[in-house]
Amino acid sequence: MQSNHNNTITLLGAGLVGSLLSIFLARRGFKVTIYERRPDMRNGGAGAGRSINLALSERGWRGLEKAGIAEEVKKIAIPMYGRMMHDTQGKLTYQPYGTAGQAIYSVSRSGLNMLLMDLAEKHGVQIHFDSRCQEVDLNANTLSVEINGQAIQAIQAEKIIGTDGAFSALRSAFQKSDRFDYQQFYIAHGYKELTIPPTVSGDFAMEEVNALHIWPRGHFMMIALPNPDKTFTCTLFFPFEGEPSFSSLKSDQQILGFFDQYFPDALRLMPDLLHEFKQNPSSSLVTVKCFPWAKGNVLLMGDAAHAIVPFYGQGMNCGFEDCREFDELLEKGLPMNELFEIFQKQRKPNADAIAELALRNFIEMRDLVADERFLLRKKIEARMNELFGEDWIPLYTMVTFRDDIPYSTALRKGQEHDRLFDRYMDTLGNIKNVTEKDIDQMAWQIMADVKTQNSQV
Amino acid sequence: MQSNHNNTITLLGAGLVGSLLSIFLARRGFKVTIYERRPDMRNGGAGAGRSINLALSERGWRGLEKAGIAEEVKKIAIPMYGRMMHDTQGKLTYQPYGTAGQAIYSVSRSGLNMLLMDLAEKHGVQIHFDSRCQEVDLNANTLSVEINGQAIQAIQAEKIIGTDGAFSALRSAFQKSDRFDYQQFYIAHGYKELTIPPTVSGDFAMEEVNALHIWPRGHFMMIALPNPDKTFTCTLFFPFEGEPSFSSLKSDQQILGFFDQYFPDALRLMPDLLHEFKQNPSSSLVTVKCFPWAKGNVLLMGDAAHAIVPFYGQGMNCGFEDCREFDELLEKGLPMNELFEIFQKQRKPNADAIAELALRNFIEMRDLVADERFLLRKKIEARMNELFGEDWIPLYTMVTFRDDIPYSTALRKGQEHDRLFDRYMDTLGNIKNVTEKDIDQMAWQIMADVKTQNSQV
Repeated sequence: MQSNHNNTITLLGAGLVGSLLSIFLARRGFKVTIYERRPDMRNGGAGAGRSINLALSERGWRGLEKAGIAEEVKKIAIPMYGRMMHDTQGKLTYQPYGTAGQAIYSVSRSGLNMLLMDLAEKHGVQIHFDSRCQEVDLNANTLSVEINGQAIQAIQAEKIIGTDGAFSALRSAFQKSDRFDYQQFYIAHGYKELTIPPTVSGDFAMEEVNALHIWPRGHFMMIALPNPDKTFTCTLFFPFEGEPSFSSLKSDQQILGFFDQYFPDALRLMPDLLHEFKQNPSSSLVTVKCFPWAKGNVLLMGDAAHAIVPFYGQGMNCGFEDCREFDELLEKGLPMNELFEIFQKQRKPNADAIAELALRNFIEMRDLVADERFLLRKKIEARMNELFGEDWIPLYTMVTFRDDIPYSTALRKGQEHDRLFDRYMDTLGNIKNVTEKDIDQMAWQIMADVKTQNSQV
Repeated sequence: MQSNHNNTITLLGAGLVGSLLSIFLARRGFKVTIYERRPDMRNGGAGAGRSINLALSERGWRGLEKAGIAEEVKKIAIPMYGRMMHDTQGKLTYQPYGTAGQAIYSVSRSGLNMLLMDLAEKHGVQIHFDSRCQEVDLNANTLSVEINGQAIQAIQAEKIIGTDGAFSALRSAFQKSDRFDYQQFYIAHGYKELTIPPTVSGDFAMEEVNALHIWPRGHFMMIALPNPDKTFTCTLFFPFEGEPSFSSLKSDQQILGFFDQYFPDALRLMPDLLHEFKQNPSSSLVTVKCFPWAKGNVLLMGDAAHAIVPFYGQGMNCGFEDCREFDELLEKGLPMNELFEIFQKQRKPNADAIAELALRNFIEMRDLVADERFLLRKKIEARMNELFGEDWIPLYTMVTFRDDIPYSTALRKGQEHDRLFDRYMDTLGNIKNVTEKDIDQMAWQIMADVKTQNSQV
């Protein structure tokens, strides 16, 4: 599979996408150098402190498999087979994500990143840490890189790929060039990470380990993902302003009162809540869209090209899909500039689609998962998927458990599903005491509608 | 009217909006300093070469009047009472913009800018030229300004207002701060300026001086505005790519062939076409939207906050309206930070509305002005305005000839008008040989519809 390129490629950013991409490139015979702003997180220190876990799903796994490290990652990944909803009384409701055995996987961002860096270096990739890119000249293909906060080094590069994240330095250079469309927008909510530590006996403090826990509360929500060290990382998604919000909770009493009112069961498991709430940052959530991603010998990839909100758990998965599709194009042996063009045309509609889906899923997670009609719809859709297979794939399944359905197709089909269900659910009266048999009947009826409609078209 | 502020205000950019704003501020007792990137255009040289003329309309005049310089500007302004459409045979069709006497005014950008700078300095405003703002620290309120391309000066400012245009340096600083929503997008068309010189006898080469000339050609168009020196400045709005486009016209023969096919009457009046076409840049057209405009002691205004495409002739007019409304808020004596907040809340919906209207008007200008149904609609609307006054103000009139109807209201009402006319025009059969009496009847009928609808709501 290794080709005869003798070309060099310079990457900016050794995060998840940069590290994985470098492996693919190295395996195709490129000489790869990465400049990474942060220190080497494998030495501990600042970078290592980033505790956030991520949800790996099918598209992510497929990238890791192609790079040959899926098995190693699986060892540190915890499967979550469904959503466990917590109501304000602490009452639990479970909703599977897909069919039996289908799961998304909680992994540590830093754990995964360190693994990818190790593997990249084994493939001969050279990573320069503490190397902040100050400026890129898109015409001359030169970088100014500040090494260890001191000397500025001018670097001549053949091809440059920016995998330097949502606040990409490379994209800043694009923005100074003519006819670059660019958009960044923030939602009104931020997030704060909190911890549910293990019990005194060293166990997970919540019994349901293999689930993504959600406390949906309408305008805000909290979620929790399990970690291998028996902690759960909780993330509170909460408005910055208004009542209640990060800015309205000022005193210890207000913070505790808020948790006692909305998350009483979680509060009991968070001995360090007050300290964490005050210490940990309230971070913002940005969506970034831009085009073109490619200019001459330079390309943006991953969050640098398309940062999204985290509510579909697809940021990393989409970035890994970028890498895999890029590798598939490399496989065809196209000239690099042509490859850049094809890559951006192929990926842009899908990046736009997952950005849209991620924004919408926030509404679903914080609001709808606690709604009876919504839960009924999920049951009907799951049954339809069992009965009709490829003829009815629920949106969540298309996005999360498939790697052969582009995000843009998933978005379009999901919209068709919505229209169909909106009409159908309107015809239903009382939805209490719905039996399995009822659900079967509904599933068949909706599919009959679909088939009749299709034949009319 | 002068208040007792002893405050100082620092502006970035001495363009049209910065210069006018500085006059308003000086008249309210502020000590104003402006840093301008370019050299002083009043000394000739680079800046003075910018030949572009602009169309001043009601909102612009109102700002100039409040600053006391409308009369002086009128001397160098040429009224244009309507659109003069040129078809490919050179046949002319005229369409008035408003009622008798209503006109938009062609003025020279540099002429107006120099006048505003003169007046600003008379009011005690200090303008530093050749002073490029490199960086703004939004928290410390400090500027790094590069003077004459050499020394960097650090400037401590009390309040900073960025009137530094579509590629604002101040806005770049905003973009590095958290939770700043930002969007820039380009249309597929660019523009190139060309000249129709005076005749040998020194007259305007086209008889209809007091009109905005348009050569609508579907996917592209050319316009021409008169100048006091008896030239017309033509602007070709044309796709960058495709067929035909800036990139498809390469040889002299192709350029001349294109003009001969689409603008034969203009071609005969452009002896220097080939040289100008090859020499003059093909410039891009950007829309910029962002929010917030205000952060602490810093504010964006004019194009820096809301750059728009030129197709409604409202970029400068909107910027002057910014200045006037800012002055009206100053008049109320509010604390500056509060004023910044009110200003951005008040202006943002209107800036968004005119951005939208400007994009839409490109379609109207390049395409619809040559359409029979569209021309009929214009006639009916003009008659309705005559008959019903305030009960029916055409969209163009609301935007161009009124300063008391916010852009956002104009956009909303215009959309209502569109829906009404779309329905009504569908009911019409043959629209040839429509008499004045027919138009009267149509006008009454549509108004009857409006009134009936309104009473039903």
